[in-house]
Amino acid sequence: MISQLIEKIQKTKAPICVGLDPMLGYIPSHIVEKAFQEYGETMEGAAEAVWQFNKEIVDHTCDLIPSVKPQIAMYEQFGIEGLKAYAKTVDYCQKKGLIVIGDVKRGDIGSTSAAYAAGHLGRVKVGNTMCSGFHTDFITVNPYLGTDGVKPFVDVCREEDKGIFVLVKTSNPSSGEFQDRLIDGRPLYELVAEKVVEWGNASMDGTYSNVGAVVGATYPEMSRILRKLMPHTYFLVPGYGAQGGTAADLKHCFNEDGLGAVVNSSRGIIAAYKQEKYAKFGPEHFAEASRQAVLDMIADINSVL
Amino acid sequence: MISQLIEKIQKTKAPICVGLDPMLGYIPSHIVEKAFQEYGETMEGAAEAVWQFNKEIVDHTCDLIPSVKPQIAMYEQFGIEGLKAYAKTVDYCQKKGLIVIGDVKRGDIGSTSAAYAAGHLGRVKVGNTMCSGFHTDFITVNPYLGTDGVKPFVDVCREEDKGIFVLVKTSNPSSGEFQDRLIDGRPLYELVAEKVVEWGNASMDGTYSNVGAVVGATYPEMSRILRKLMPHTYFLVPGYGAQGGTAADLKHCFNEDGLGAVVNSSRGIIAAYKQEKYAKFGPEHFAEASRQAVLDMIADINSVL
Repeated sequence: MISQLIEKIQKTKAPICVGLDPMLGYIPSHIVEKAFQEYGETMEGAAEAVWQFNKEIVDHTCDLIPSVKPQIAMYEQFGIEGLKAYAKTVDYCQKKGLIVIGDVKRGDIGSTSAAYAAGHLGRVKVGNTMCSGFHTDFITVNPYLGTDGVKPFVDVCREEDKGIFVLVKTSNPSSGEFQDRLIDGRPLYELVAEKVVEWGNASMDGTYSNVGAVVGATYPEMSRILRKLMPHTYFLVPGYGAQGGTAADLKHCFNEDGLGAVVNSSRGIIAAYKQEKYAKFGPEHFAEASRQAVLDMIADINSVL
Repeated sequence: MISQLIEKIQKTKAPICVGLDPMLGYIPSHIVEKAFQEYGETMEGAAEAVWQFNKEIVDHTCDLIPSVKPQIAMYEQFGIEGLKAYAKTVDYCQKKGLIVIGDVKRGDIGSTSAAYAAGHLGRVKVGNTMCSGFHTDFITVNPYLGTDGVKPFVDVCREEDKGIFVLVKTSNPSSGEFQDRLIDGRPLYELVAEKVVEWGNASMDGTYSNVGAVVGATYPEMSRILRKLMPHTYFLVPGYGAQGGTAADLKHCFNEDGLGAVVNSSRGIIAAYKQEKYAKFGPEHFAEASRQAVLDMIADINSVL
């Protein structure tokens, strides 16, 4: 699966993914009002607004980008209706030729992780029939439970040609609270990184592994070290843009072949029309603002590669 | 919320929760076949079997127990239909007077954790209407992202009188891989425990906090230390029964007041009819086997308190 992502990155010259994290506050009022008129101020109404918003952004950006990253929490907050919008978004993006990274951050004991892996990446046996749930291409995985909690995801990567990104060093302000603590003189995230490399050896797909790592753009010195520690691991890099990471900060996430990282931006793209820079588009043309923001992000990142 | 759980524990004299983690393989064939006849070998069929299985177990045990713990992965594997069965199970258990602990192990950066907290514990604003998603009473939370990833859950606990159990020391074999690593001479799980106490101070509910901890039954020496480190923290204790934890192992999870822990058993209860001990009930009377297993578990745990 990582080779498919790389192929699309090379074709678009855009090592990015658009974070489809549609808070209701980001969605222009004409979309929200139309959805409420049809379904009321209900979970169904919210989910419809989310879906229409996503669809228009995807329609206006899919030719420019290799991948999207829907954050499932933004859908899960609207219960079943929200999750239906998540599933619909995943399907639609895949039909548009995009690689879909489900940002689900799941992780549990072995048998439970196996269920998550089946539901999000693989298939589940119902009687004699194989059924698939959310069938995203990649998901994000939390490593706190250790190898037996991650292995079921790696198994599905190998068996079904899918991928995962394991949280190594996250982009948020307090990520260091546990992740940076020193163990035998080295931060915990480095130990996790070494395990990610070990897990990744079980599912290589060309030069890179289907088992990638989440490495925040907000900690450039750490990404430099992690890049060296994990030469064949693809990085999913959150934190660019709204969270404060700049293109210069991203440089260390890439290998010398110009590969090795896919950079996410959510708010910076999907709510671009709210920024002064893109205000001229207006809420009616929010998706054109998103398209321009994608073009600007691609140029910005390529300027440091 | 923790005071409500404690009240029910005292009333039932049963510091336990039944893990509603219905793998299809646990469900007797007469239920599965009936569901498949109605809905085919589909996600809908699987979800119907899960729901009928849960309902019968809840009907046969709800007068004996204070709480249940559905593991959402076992529902999520069946996609949207599975999640509908999860929501239906949560509603049904609450109507039967049970406290529902959603074992979801969510955790992300602040804004994303806020969405999970709203979706699983709190409410979400849709226009001028407050809607609620899964509205479980407690959920489990993963601490890997640190304070800003946990705080939104704690805020909802305080505002909506709900509860969480933060993963401290999990019950699985490789939990020690990261959790046991020494930082300044002390294992990571102790540092997490100290943070849980700190977070918990923001949402006290009587003697105990609404912010609890997951502490596996499979590591009794560690639970002894954690019990002392976190005197006002309730423990959710997985790992009893099928995973190997015994009643003697559980003793250290409790305080001298006989409170402080709620012990989970999943397979040991819901698939009791598959054990030799309860085979006499047969698959047709699986829920009566579950009832007997609950009675035995309560007696077993009370024997060490």
